[in-house]
Amino acid sequence: MSTERFDRGWERLKEINSEAGERITETLREIAPDLAKYTIEFPFGDIYSRPGLDLKSREIVTVAALTALGNAIPQLKSHINAALNVGCTKEEIVEIIMQMAVYAGFPAALNGMYAAKEVFRERDLSK
Amino acid sequence: MSTERFDRGWERLKEINSEAGERITETLREIAPDLAKYTIEFPFGDIYSRPGLDLKSREIVTVAALTALGNAIPQLKSHINAALNVGCTKEEIVEIIMQMAVYAGFPAALNGMYAAKEVFRERDLSK
Amino acid sequence: MSTERFDRGWERLKEINSEAGERITETLREIAPDLAKYTIEFPFGDIYSRPGLDLKSREIVTVAALTALGNAIPQLKSHINAALNVGCTKEEIVEIIMQMAVYAGFPAALNGMYAAKEVFRERDLSK
Amino acid sequence: MSTERFDRGWERLKEINSEAGERITETLREIAPDLAKYTIEFPFGDIYSRPGLDLKSREIVTVAALTALGNAIPQLKSHINAALNVGCTKEEIVEIIMQMAVYAGFPAALNGMYAAKEVFRERDLSK
Amino acid sequence: MSTERFDRGWERLKEINSEAGERITETLREIAPDLAKYTIEFPFGDIYSRPGLDLKSREIVTVAALTALGNAIPQLKSHINAALNVGCTKEEIVEIIMQMAVYAGFPAALNGMYAAKEVFRERDLSK
Amino acid sequence: MSTERFDRGWERLKEINSEAGERITETLREIAPDLAKYTIEFPFGDIYSRPGLDLKSREIVTVAALTALGNAIPQLKSHINAALNVGCTKEEIVEIIMQMAVYAGFPAALNGMYAAKEVFRERDLSK
Repeated sequence: MSTERFDRGWERLKEINSEAGERITETLREIAPDLAKYTIEFPFGDIYSRPGLDLKSREIVTVAALTALGNAIPQLKSHINAALNVGCTKEEIVEIIMQMAVYAGFPAALNGMYAAKEVFRERDLSK
Repeated sequence: MSTERFDRGWERLKEINSEAGERITETLREIAPDLAKYTIEFPFGDIYSRPGLDLKSREIVTVAALTALGNAIPQLKSHINAALNVGCTKEEIVEIIMQMAVYAGFPAALNGMYAAKEVFRERDLSK
Repeated sequence: MSTERFDRGWERLKEINSEAGERITETLREIAPDLAKYTIEFPFGDIYSRPGLDLKSREIVTVAALTALGNAIPQLKSHINAALNVGCTKEEIVEIIMQMAVYAGFPAALNGMYAAKEVFRERDLSK
Repeated sequence: MSTERFDRGWERLKEINSEAGERITETLREIAPDLAKYTIEFPFGDIYSRPGLDLKSREIVTVAALTALGNAIPQLKSHINAALNVGCTKEEIVEIIMQMAVYAGFPAALNGMYAAKEVFRERDLSK
Repeated sequence: MSTERFDRGWERLKEINSEAGERITETLREIAPDLAKYTIEFPFGDIYSRPGLDLKSREIVTVAALTALGNAIPQLKSHINAALNVGCTKEEIVEIIMQMAVYAGFPAALNGMYAAKEVFRERDLSK
Repeated sequence: MSTERFDRGWERLKEINSEAGERITETLREIAPDLAKYTIEFPFGDIYSRPGLDLKSREIVTVAALTALGNAIPQLKSHINAALNVGCTKEEIVEIIMQMAVYAGFPAALNGMYAAKEVFRERDLSK
């Protein structure tokens, strides 16, 4: 039951983090396939497909928000990967997360940095 | 009782939002002058003065985080001003805040957008 | 630039809280009309239009969540109105908010109850 | 040192989730037995024993709040079990959690849904 | 419909902040008198009446938590008053709030300090 | 590249929790050594080194805040250890965490208590 928004979102998500879309779809297949569909459609089909902010900036925004909120480490790791995939450097990601010490406190920044460390290591291993 | 970090932070903050530094210092003068000092030193003297992420990206990061956290509207308005001062367009700020609907929910994004609307109007009036 | 999802969402929102849709659209008209559109489309056109949970239960869910999160009082007031419009009694709303003392603490419950008190009074006055 | 409130709360909790009361009491026996007592007395002896909102609605309220807050996954799982025990269907739980994407963002909804998936599987296995 | 817990809580609250109990009771009289009762009974009749932590430390704990959470400014102001009433100095309150910059970020600390400033001024005026 | 603030912070942190400083420094050595440096300098060199609040009260403040925030369990455990190291009793820590049920809800207090239980057991084992 594909739609234009879904297809656009799927293309966008593949560009950003090709595994993430399949993992979410697979995980939610039985319990809540519509949530997987919405997760492709609204965030990626609507928002990440908008002009007005380049894809790298969009991932900077998301890494910042998820580090600050501090309650969604798996999604933070997924978007650290996405940020690296669309042109952020590791140094920039480190800077974004470090800056969160100012706005959400040191524990949030430290836990974000530990997530980044894991992502960087996984990527180094899979090279 | 100035220090190198304080001076560097003060310069940085003047570049970003010249009023904010004076307002914080003035407001905290009697009750907690050291908190004003730390607010200049650590966020602006240490973090915003680092290389590795340009100033515009730093403000994008902060607008995203404060919109997502949703409990610091005065500081969000101050950083929307700062973001505009260092080269963000209104359109980019609108995009950053809109994207927060995905990560922190629609109420957080709506309240962030209302803050942006007030800032944009104040700037238009003071032209 | 209406769509099927938008039209369905608009109908749904009118059923729930006829003023809210127009207020959001009006407030965001110049700054971010697309956020108004998304706020109609995804929450109301997609989610609130789903079968599987009746409209009254959906508003119970939202009043609970916004009281617990505690950082979106205007939206909480809007959904207390919506809950009353779709068949919740004042007593049920009081119970929902009171229960939040257990999960989000007494200040969140108290602030939620003060919001309910204002909504109840406004409705009594406008009778 | 039983009291009327404690006894009423214990009965109520047994009705909702017979294991949870014993697990909390056992876990806190040495470190903080009074916190176990209060957890039976206030939430279950006072709040869940009130008329004015049926038990199923009370569990809907709690699943919504814990999904939105996002920082208490073990308690969320316990209340998904409780909700099923007092008459919620799996489909309703899926709808409640999905709706939280609107108010607390997609990561909160996704993490809530993963918790529900684990609970559903554990219940299927123990049949 | 007084109880031993209520009476003990009321005495405790009068000792801490004599106005707060009456204000909460008055405000909730019509909408949710039971929430007022619970707010006296559990926090003050059960928790603040426990041995094991002196009253001044209990208020230090609460001022810290409410500053960090950042979404209950009226309750924070009430407990800054309470802390002063049970022997905290203004200097200690300033230190507690300032320390929150480390754990919840600078905006939370700044907003807590602005609340303290208002409380200190109100107390100076009413002398 | 040691500084006076760093040295003072390191001494202070060693006094509070001798392992924590080395663990943070080691963990961040490659990815973000500056964040380790800032974590010593600002929290411990600036804040915990201030007069005006004794060290035991500072740890009470931090245990309260981290329990209430609920999204930094590793840091909470570290500060429960620190609190015990600077003179808090286990009973006081239990009281602090229990009180958070009032301000951040029962799940936050329960999860804080489970963290305390683990810390107490680890310390008993390592005796």
